[in-house]
Amino acid sequence: MSFQDYFPVWDQLDAGQQRRLLDSLSFQTAPRGTILHDGGMDSAGLFLVRTGQLRAYVLSDEGREVTIYRLFERDLCLFSASCIIRGIQFEVTIQAEKDTQLWRIPPAVYRSLMAESAAVANYTNELMASRFSEVIARMEQVIWKRMDKRVAAFLLQEAAIEGSSEPRITHEAIANHLGSHREVITRTLRDFQSAGMVRLSRGMVTLLDTEKLKALCT
Amino acid sequence: MSFQDYFPVWDQLDAGQQRRLLDSLSFQTAPRGTILHDGGMDSAGLFLVRTGQLRAYVLSDEGREVTIYRLFERDLCLFSASCIIRGIQFEVTIQAEKDTQLWRIPPAVYRSLMAESAAVANYTNELMASRFSEVIARMEQVIWKRMDKRVAAFLLQEAAIEGSSEPRITHEAIANHLGSHREVITRTLRDFQSAGMVRLSRGMVTLLDTEKLKALCT
Repeated sequence: MSFQDYFPVWDQLDAGQQRRLLDSLSFQTAPRGTILHDGGMDSAGLFLVRTGQLRAYVLSDEGREVTIYRLFERDLCLFSASCIIRGIQFEVTIQAEKDTQLWRIPPAVYRSLMAESAAVANYTNELMASRFSEVIARMEQVIWKRMDKRVAAFLLQEAAIEGSSEPRITHEAIANHLGSHREVITRTLRDFQSAGMVRLSRGMVTLLDTEKLKALCT
Repeated sequence: MSFQDYFPVWDQLDAGQQRRLLDSLSFQTAPRGTILHDGGMDSAGLFLVRTGQLRAYVLSDEGREVTIYRLFERDLCLFSASCIIRGIQFEVTIQAEKDTQLWRIPPAVYRSLMAESAAVANYTNELMASRFSEVIARMEQVIWKRMDKRVAAFLLQEAAIEGSSEPRITHEAIANHLGSHREVITRTLRDFQSAGMVRLSRGMVTLLDTEKLKALCT
């Protein structure tokens, strides 16, 4: 599978635009844990994920984290190149959550394609709208959902992503996803353990009763 | 001042597109309090604000509100026409916070302009990026800022918008902006009153010490 197969509006570019884009790409393998972009860096370019998984999060002044969205195979990360769109006034950090293969598109090239092609501009619009929707959903959860419901939902999501009932994730990492404190997460997970929903061991949470966890989420 | 002066990419449309847009417009006056769009309605079209002020908010399952952004003169509201962009999966309610004059643009017309014109598509991108930035900032506040700091910041913002140190706003309305409960807001405002920062009376909060409120926000 090549770049062309991963970039949905490829066929709507003319031959010159296709060439310009292909010539500008760089391919990269980022081991799990790599910080690919942080708000302070120069624009890192857009990332198109070939395999793996990225996490985009924001940092508080005190260094606390909260995930704003995740990217999977075929997803394009716009906000690592916030210079491509005027009006973006926040800084995200992008981290590889798994070993990840990706293409980097230089911001200047992408910006020129957006300016020339309504198809690329509208594709970009759709991507931003999807991320926007995720962030709104996340904000609703933060404001209105109890922490135990959010932890239960997160564990179920992790299990689905990993395809395993034993997602490898630390209490600290769960806190960083949900914008909470490790102590709060540990307390919640211990309550789940007492209720027979999970079993805790070092760096791992085993889901014992997914039905009960699902019931808790609703 | 006419529509042309309020629509920033007017000059980048061709004569046919300009005509199509002008012919499709309707002009409306919405008294303060009017619900112009709610998630359940059919797409209401895009609103371009001539004078006044709109509020966009989301509702919880229990009917609680939280403001996600506000729109002022010259702002264009995209999300009252979520059908114009694939990928929008949330529902907002749009309410006039003041008596408001606005133009409505039918979604089908705007969508056709976006498809034809990279300028319109990129303008739309910038708008969405601005709103996105506001929502991220709001989420950061919700997660990481204490409620008293958020109430202080909101009061100062209201005073700036109203151009008055006596913004007319109820405790309920403040709660709806911040996604909180009226009781919490009342308690916070009473603490402010005890500290000499505000004076409370029916439907009004008088700011007595803006320096102290500003110091609290930081």
